[in-house]
Amino acid sequence: MKDIVVKQVLALDIRFPTSRELDGSDASNPAPDYSAGYAIIETNRSGLRGHGLTFTIGDGTDLVVAAIHSLSRFVRGKTLSGIVDDMPAFYATLARDQQLKWVGPEKGVVHLACAAIVNAVWDLWSKALGKPAWRLIAEMAPEQLVRCIDFSYIADALSPREALDMLRDGEKSKSDRVKEVMERGYPAYNTSAGWIGYDDDKILRLCTSARDAGWDKFKLKVGRSLVDDIRRCEIIRGVIGDDALLMLDANQVWNVGEAIEWLRPLRKFRPTWIEEPTSCDDVFGHLEIKKATGIPIATGEQCHNRVMFKQFLYAKAMDYCQVDPCRVGGLTEAIAVLLLAHAKGVPVCPHTGGVGLCEISQHLAIVDFICVSRTMDGRMLEYVDHLHEHFVDPVQVRGGRYLPPMKPGLSQELMTEAITEFAYPGGAAWKS
Amino acid sequence: MKDIVVKQVLALDIRFPTSRELDGSDASNPAPDYSAGYAIIETNRSGLRGHGLTFTIGDGTDLVVAAIHSLSRFVRGKTLSGIVDDMPAFYATLARDQQLKWVGPEKGVVHLACAAIVNAVWDLWSKALGKPAWRLIAEMAPEQLVRCIDFSYIADALSPREALDMLRDGEKSKSDRVKEVMERGYPAYNTSAGWIGYDDDKILRLCTSARDAGWDKFKLKVGRSLVDDIRRCEIIRGVIGDDALLMLDANQVWNVGEAIEWLRPLRKFRPTWIEEPTSCDDVFGHLEIKKATGIPIATGEQCHNRVMFKQFLYAKAMDYCQVDPCRVGGLTEAIAVLLLAHAKGVPVCPHTGGVGLCEISQHLAIVDFICVSRTMDGRMLEYVDHLHEHFVDPVQVRGGRYLPPMKPGLSQELMTEAITEFAYPGGAAWKS
Repeated sequence: MKDIVVKQVLALDIRFPTSRELDGSDASNPAPDYSAGYAIIETNRSGLRGHGLTFTIGDGTDLVVAAIHSLSRFVRGKTLSGIVDDMPAFYATLARDQQLKWVGPEKGVVHLACAAIVNAVWDLWSKALGKPAWRLIAEMAPEQLVRCIDFSYIADALSPREALDMLRDGEKSKSDRVKEVMERGYPAYNTSAGWIGYDDDKILRLCTSARDAGWDKFKLKVGRSLVDDIRRCEIIRGVIGDDALLMLDANQVWNVGEAIEWLRPLRKFRPTWIEEPTSCDDVFGHLEIKKATGIPIATGEQCHNRVMFKQFLYAKAMDYCQVDPCRVGGLTEAIAVLLLAHAKGVPVCPHTGGVGLCEISQHLAIVDFICVSRTMDGRMLEYVDHLHEHFVDPVQVRGGRYLPPMKPGLSQELMTEAITEFAYPGGAAWKS
Repeated sequence: MKDIVVKQVLALDIRFPTSRELDGSDASNPAPDYSAGYAIIETNRSGLRGHGLTFTIGDGTDLVVAAIHSLSRFVRGKTLSGIVDDMPAFYATLARDQQLKWVGPEKGVVHLACAAIVNAVWDLWSKALGKPAWRLIAEMAPEQLVRCIDFSYIADALSPREALDMLRDGEKSKSDRVKEVMERGYPAYNTSAGWIGYDDDKILRLCTSARDAGWDKFKLKVGRSLVDDIRRCEIIRGVIGDDALLMLDANQVWNVGEAIEWLRPLRKFRPTWIEEPTSCDDVFGHLEIKKATGIPIATGEQCHNRVMFKQFLYAKAMDYCQVDPCRVGGLTEAIAVLLLAHAKGVPVCPHTGGVGLCEISQHLAIVDFICVSRTMDGRMLEYVDHLHEHFVDPVQVRGGRYLPPMKPGLSQELMTEAITEFAYPGGAAWKS
């Protein structure tokens, strides 16, 4: 890979007008336009490109795209082998540039941009080797994977030595797990029926058809009206029965006290978790809610970096770790979070949905199963049935399980037609 | 103020080439160009403008400026009274817009931009009433000030009722404290001598002349080389003697374990605090360092919002609260942090330095003294002698104390000549 040289990095603003149908609506985000800051790494080798994205919900994508453009100078002219032979150094260049980091650090717009570029590198690397990214990682020796990880600010919770021991444990029966995930797929849960902007009939209809298609795990958005939430929980429990799993997601709409009051009457629906009951920064608030309600806490989709995950895990304020490889600084930092969570015995259920998140997070979940946690128990990957048609290698879900992607790359590549139509503001979808 | 209408908000990128002299250099930021995302609110009233800035260190200022531009639509066309009569609603519009918040939320580029606009509003409000901002706030009834504050996500730690009680306590002998601060000024400490890029001779010279000018509190940047740090501490202690205060600042360069090892040999210099020994997000890491070294912790300049301050205060991981009114979402959120810190008995020493931070933070420190903590004991405001000459109402420091600003506004207005010269990239300073 020494002869693969980055010629340029394109940064594109891609927006899907999902707010027109209220797809993706929740208590906190009533009308999102699912969007992506999209990075394309072009190389000197004809047809070899890396594609990476970070998910956004409309306004602000322009800022992320400007940040990708700004970071691209750290990638241009580099060889692929130069990048991947020292991933922590490459990551540090992007995430902790001595001037740019001030407007983060390692959070917000610049970190989202970092994710898009890092993910494009993983896509490029996987394509150069002709493997899906999960397989590239699964086939690495533990020493090689440890060398990819930036341990800064987390070494007290997870030293390189401990990570190595963990990954060596992960070598045991690895090939069995590769076989298992190829044959059985990875467990999923369904959110497509539960958006807050959907009326009761639509929820009933979508939920029934999902159940009939084999789904047994569902998520409902809550937090706009308690009366509505109770009625919607009743509708869903009526369809899915008592044995299926029901998760609730409040998208940070409550103060701590409100969360506790609101959740009391919802306990009877036996939620597997309450997701993001309050601010994504409120470690102790999440802990308080968990203690007061007894409902397990899922959070992490807006947990901005490995250091914040360290806080939540240390405080035992996170029962399900929903790391998002596009919110933290890309797949590499997400793998560090897998290891941190495993060290604390917390299952990882990566954040998906949005646009392209199902596509990337399936790689992460499969890596967790094959290399780190070695189990699917208590794990599940969100599935939302939106926008997959725009990807070259869209997720394949059958009977409530993800089938591992088999094409080379990180599954982040958009169809050319999608770019033409949804580029913002010039694309056809936005001109009308 | 009903007839004062915002006509437009200008967003400017202002950069000072400070890296040429290594002013402001530290272990984490070896060559910053002190910069500002600068917002000017223009009104329908001739000559009445509001000026607000957020501090940056070079690259990335363009992103903040783009975000200010994006947020300006929420300000244009509004009346000043409409804004200030419901500051929490105005703040929520800027900080939690339903789409833009995804690329924060309340952190990074978008939150820095929010700060610039909110600070420009305070400047405009103060100018419209013909008062310095600290006096505008000091003269508010407790009920009015409480109505300015956004309690979302912190009400469990500080309810509006508790804030009101606190501010009512602050009414006691208020006029005496106004008189006191006008006569005696506010205590300061000096960092101008302690930049990491300065050689021993320069440190010795600057430190000696500061001591001779009446300074008795000094801060030194550490963390690049332990041998250097020990020698530099010896030089400074040699000049300032045993009774003067010495603060150390590592600007987040260490992992937790490194910080503990590094600080052991520095304990003998009896630092008043170690500032930012590790990641600004690492609440438990700061606590661990404090426990292991016994050195009090100062942090907060990159603590991105009131929720993060709640974490540090709750965990007792912050002994000195260094809130920065340009890092959190402006002066209003910084006042919420004053109240949170007071509730936990933690002294506030706001972050200054950079460009324009001394100018804004003096207002905050004075408000803390007059309305909240009612004491200057254990409080001090950093003073760095850079770039004040570019402001219309620069800070006045005499004998190691800040003299309260007397001109109307929040002291954020740059001279027209400074804008012409340092606008980036078109200004004269950048063309050469």
